[in-house]
Amino acid sequence: MPRLAPPSGVVTLLSDFGSRDPYVGIMKGALLRRCRAATIVDLCHEVPPQDVEVGAFFLGAAVGRFPAGTVHVAVVDPGVGTGRRMLAVAAADCYWIGPDNGLLSAVLVEEDAVVLEVEPQRLGLRPQGRTFHGRDVFAPAGGMLAGRLCGFEALGRRIEDPKLLPLDARPRVVHVDHFGNLITNLAADRLPAGVRSLSIAGRAVPFVGTYGERPAGSLIALVGSFGTVEVAVVDGSAYERLGVGRGEPVRASTDHADSNP
Amino acid sequence: MPRLAPPSGVVTLLSDFGSRDPYVGIMKGALLRRCRAATIVDLCHEVPPQDVEVGAFFLGAAVGRFPAGTVHVAVVDPGVGTGRRMLAVAAADCYWIGPDNGLLSAVLVEEDAVVLEVEPQRLGLRPQGRTFHGRDVFAPAGGMLAGRLCGFEALGRRIEDPKLLPLDARPRVVHVDHFGNLITNLAADRLPAGVRSLSIAGRAVPFVGTYGERPAGSLIALVGSFGTVEVAVVDGSAYERLGVGRGEPVRASTDHADSNP
Amino acid sequence: MPRLAPPSGVVTLLSDFGSRDPYVGIMKGALLRRCRAATIVDLCHEVPPQDVEVGAFFLGAAVGRFPAGTVHVAVVDPGVGTGRRMLAVAAADCYWIGPDNGLLSAVLVEEDAVVLEVEPQRLGLRPQGRTFHGRDVFAPAGGMLAGRLCGFEALGRRIEDPKLLPLDARPRVVHVDHFGNLITNLAADRLPAGVRSLSIAGRAVPFVGTYGERPAGSLIALVGSFGTVEVAVVDGSAYERLGVGRGEPVRASTDHADSNP
Repeated sequence: MPRLAPPSGVVTLLSDFGSRDPYVGIMKGALLRRCRAATIVDLCHEVPPQDVEVGAFFLGAAVGRFPAGTVHVAVVDPGVGTGRRMLAVAAADCYWIGPDNGLLSAVLVEEDAVVLEVEPQRLGLRPQGRTFHGRDVFAPAGGMLAGRLCGFEALGRRIEDPKLLPLDARPRVVHVDHFGNLITNLAADRLPAGVRSLSIAGRAVPFVGTYGERPAGSLIALVGSFGTVEVAVVDGSAYERLGVGRGEPVRASTDHADSNP
Repeated sequence: MPRLAPPSGVVTLLSDFGSRDPYVGIMKGALLRRCRAATIVDLCHEVPPQDVEVGAFFLGAAVGRFPAGTVHVAVVDPGVGTGRRMLAVAAADCYWIGPDNGLLSAVLVEEDAVVLEVEPQRLGLRPQGRTFHGRDVFAPAGGMLAGRLCGFEALGRRIEDPKLLPLDARPRVVHVDHFGNLITNLAADRLPAGVRSLSIAGRAVPFVGTYGERPAGSLIALVGSFGTVEVAVVDGSAYERLGVGRGEPVRASTDHADSNP
Repeated sequence: MPRLAPPSGVVTLLSDFGSRDPYVGIMKGALLRRCRAATIVDLCHEVPPQDVEVGAFFLGAAVGRFPAGTVHVAVVDPGVGTGRRMLAVAAADCYWIGPDNGLLSAVLVEEDAVVLEVEPQRLGLRPQGRTFHGRDVFAPAGGMLAGRLCGFEALGRRIEDPKLLPLDARPRVVHVDHFGNLITNLAADRLPAGVRSLSIAGRAVPFVGTYGERPAGSLIALVGSFGTVEVAVVDGSAYERLGVGRGEPVRASTDHADSNP
């Protein structure tokens, strides 16, 4: 097993719980009961309901962005309370806890990932219901790890067959962000040399370096905050302008862009 | 007086302030000015405006879910700046601070609750306005208690007649959550033995153990994350499916469910 | 240079990032990597996209509301990645970090403000992209200051010409809040003696002390939580009632209010 970073006391939470209810707050209570000194960060709670794919994409954006030894707790869990397993993973200098439904794919593919099936009874955790393992298992287990009440290996037993999301590398829009930017899965290092434009929705959109390079209202493509290509309208919404969203195919090209995208 | 838990340094905030404005952030500043070491948790800030009943229901969901000695500050306060009293309550191993309008009902009914009327002048607090006692009184008082600048008894004077929400135990939908689940006030322990279905909106919906037991799109009833019965659509919204919401009566029954709910 | 408050370890974040994406969470990771012990407060992340004016108004509401030595990081930054400068300001007993686009106007006008242009390379910061200086510069710089990895003066070089928002003191609605209250820029101390009403949208609305003084549904004017005049409907929305919003002119007067506002 690779050397594991000592838990930093930082715990992030990712979920599809939204902000309308006390669910996230209650989960933090369960965490603080095991680790009073935790520093809790909300990674995002607006994953669309039950949308494991977007959750996995967001979680991937956290890799390398937090102190070593951070515990990332992720709960997008349509199978809660059924037989689906619960995982704890050591990878990328951090810890990752969540359901075995592909949500942790971004770190499960790391070469030296160590994967455990969490065994709640071993940790003295007895779920009070079958609908809220975020509160009853994931957050408490994360708190025990962050607070060093138990070591990583004590969370459960090693497994070799965690569930991965099906690999679909076709370049496409995978998320529409708060600004209406169309975020693709096309990583910066997959772009062809001399790339000039991005094809989307029948248009060839020019590549630029950042938003402010073009006047307000311009349709542009650029490497954005996820480290992937995104399509944006300067001071506007590409989502509204183009009328396309998630799943829309894109293609990077060395062709010139349209003159009036 | 019962023995009180030493303040844990954890402070939760509940309000109807939403996320559109800096109100919650400013309240946290007031808190940190009195208790720099506080660990602040947002319980929920999306209580519908002025909706004391939903606020009280959410606050009830926090009972027993946080470290002993947690200070819960709750601000749903349509009477702010009028003569309505402000309360501090010791109950259920925690502290509860909020307006005297029924918001704290869930803990006021605890047998050994100790109830004080907060006296701001005693604490050196002089509200700067008449619209934001969350910033000017509730958060500072919570900070002083959490930071042990004053003991609980020093917050004000004992009273015996706090305002309670009218008791209405009729089984009904009391909240629609982020997922469109219809949350009822029907506690798990009030269900009849051998319960098989829940009547709502003219249908008899089958009871199950958890969401994933039925295929996507199924209408189900189950004991949910509030510890009460809820009506859900697997991977969907019961609110949209049934077209009913808060106030809708429900009835648990040992009858069989409809074949096609 | 005026004596600077020692950093308190509290860091606030203001942005137009919203809650739909992991952007705010990732920014916190960058901050915690430099200052593990930071206490992070979200001031607000729902500034309308690219709306520097509203961001500046919100930031002004934080002046004097946090512990001395708090580091306020503000990111409403349509010019990200272009030549626009980045600022660090010592003023009003706190530190303020953000783009040089007027966002920090509320503290730049303080008489003894010390203004630096942040020099990322001096801090060992090399932006990984051109779209997310919140993550790559502002939050790390804030973390270094809050965690005392470097002194304020070490963040960059003194400048004398930061950009200020154009002064527009005309009394008007500058923000519509979560409750539908119409927040104006008319400070309490600019009101005429014996003020009785506020003119807005062709009506004369009566001044009162607080919401609960009038029955539900009443249209009122009062000094609100921003310390400025606001127009409200008791237990309702003035925005919906009047059908006017940001930019709407107002005028305070000693005239009587309409009898049926």
